[in-house]
Amino acid sequence: MQLPSSLLENAVAEFSKLPGIGKKTALRLVLHLLKQETEVTNQFGETLMKMRKEIQFCQNCYNISDGKICSICANTSRQKNVICVVENIRDVIAIENTQQYNGTYHVLGGIISPLDGIGPEQLTIDSLIERVKKEEVSELIFALNPTIQGDTTIYYIQKKLANVHCKVTTIARGIAFGGELEYADEMTLGKSISNRQPIQQYIK
Amino acid sequence: MQLPSSLLENAVAEFSKLPGIGKKTALRLVLHLLKQETEVTNQFGETLMKMRKEIQFCQNCYNISDGKICSICANTSRQKNVICVVENIRDVIAIENTQQYNGTYHVLGGIISPLDGIGPEQLTIDSLIERVKKEEVSELIFALNPTIQGDTTIYYIQKKLANVHCKVTTIARGIAFGGELEYADEMTLGKSISNRQPIQQYIK
Repeated sequence: MQLPSSLLENAVAEFSKLPGIGKKTALRLVLHLLKQETEVTNQFGETLMKMRKEIQFCQNCYNISDGKICSICANTSRQKNVICVVENIRDVIAIENTQQYNGTYHVLGGIISPLDGIGPEQLTIDSLIERVKKEEVSELIFALNPTIQGDTTIYYIQKKLANVHCKVTTIARGIAFGGELEYADEMTLGKSISNRQPIQQYIK
Repeated sequence: MQLPSSLLENAVAEFSKLPGIGKKTALRLVLHLLKQETEVTNQFGETLMKMRKEIQFCQNCYNISDGKICSICANTSRQKNVICVVENIRDVIAIENTQQYNGTYHVLGGIISPLDGIGPEQLTIDSLIERVKKEEVSELIFALNPTIQGDTTIYYIQKKLANVHCKVTTIARGIAFGGELEYADEMTLGKSISNRQPIQQYIK
């Protein structure tokens, strides 16, 4: 696709670098900006640059934060002795939206995946271990995706915590609400039977 | 969806303003930028702002341009007495990509659509009429979408040019290459029969 202006070409190329945005979509977005006032584009660019420059990661849990400590860690009404270990910030947002969890988080920044060149030292595992030891954590909840990499990461962290007295759990796997039994995979259905729960607990 | 930082929230809101980008996609794009170096976001923002500030519209045909006259109008090897009238810049890019056209363009900036509050005065019709009269244009090719609004626009311009000696044509409508006869709508199929062409011309 040939474009009539090098300025346009550069802008389209920048948008195309974003994940899931091809050249045609990029062109549509740029032409949309061109239709608006100059002020709209300036605000768009400046907001992004300001965000990138000023945003911080919580020194405690590595969640995104406006300051040194994120709003979750700074919230005194949350249980500090329960930590939910997640892969990335999107998982924090997803769990927060359920409004079912009142503990704190620890964002690993990825999971151990030797094939992608990600080892434990690239993640925030050391600081998690330190936190568990220092803050007298009573429960560590793993909310990682059920893949080999996720299991490896859990195994690695558990081994590091072998001498620490702390309950370690993982979020429940099973049939999703609205899911149909007959279409569930064997692994999930099998686990959901072996991990069956008393009805009382379920209704509560 | 609650986000843990107001900076993040603002950036997501800016992305969500773009057409076809919802809040979830916007978050994905912002988190992608956060994963990269600060430089990447700065370049992204600055390229867009520079584009918006410096880009011009050709004084002759209203195509996007780096200077006062676009590269198509400035190209001496193109036929200046043939003008293809299109709705927007995307149409110029599409026709240019066919490499089948060697004339110039005129970008209307929309089509007459009273329901959307777009009248002839919001479009570049006056300057088109002036161009046709001044440049001794021999052929005016309408490449507008075959809608009521498109037809109205053609009718309006033709009326304005009633006293001017100039051939007026429109791009051919018919069955698309790769299209199947049985699935074509009646209007298209009917037109493609009544506007049938001699085989020689077709093969040439």
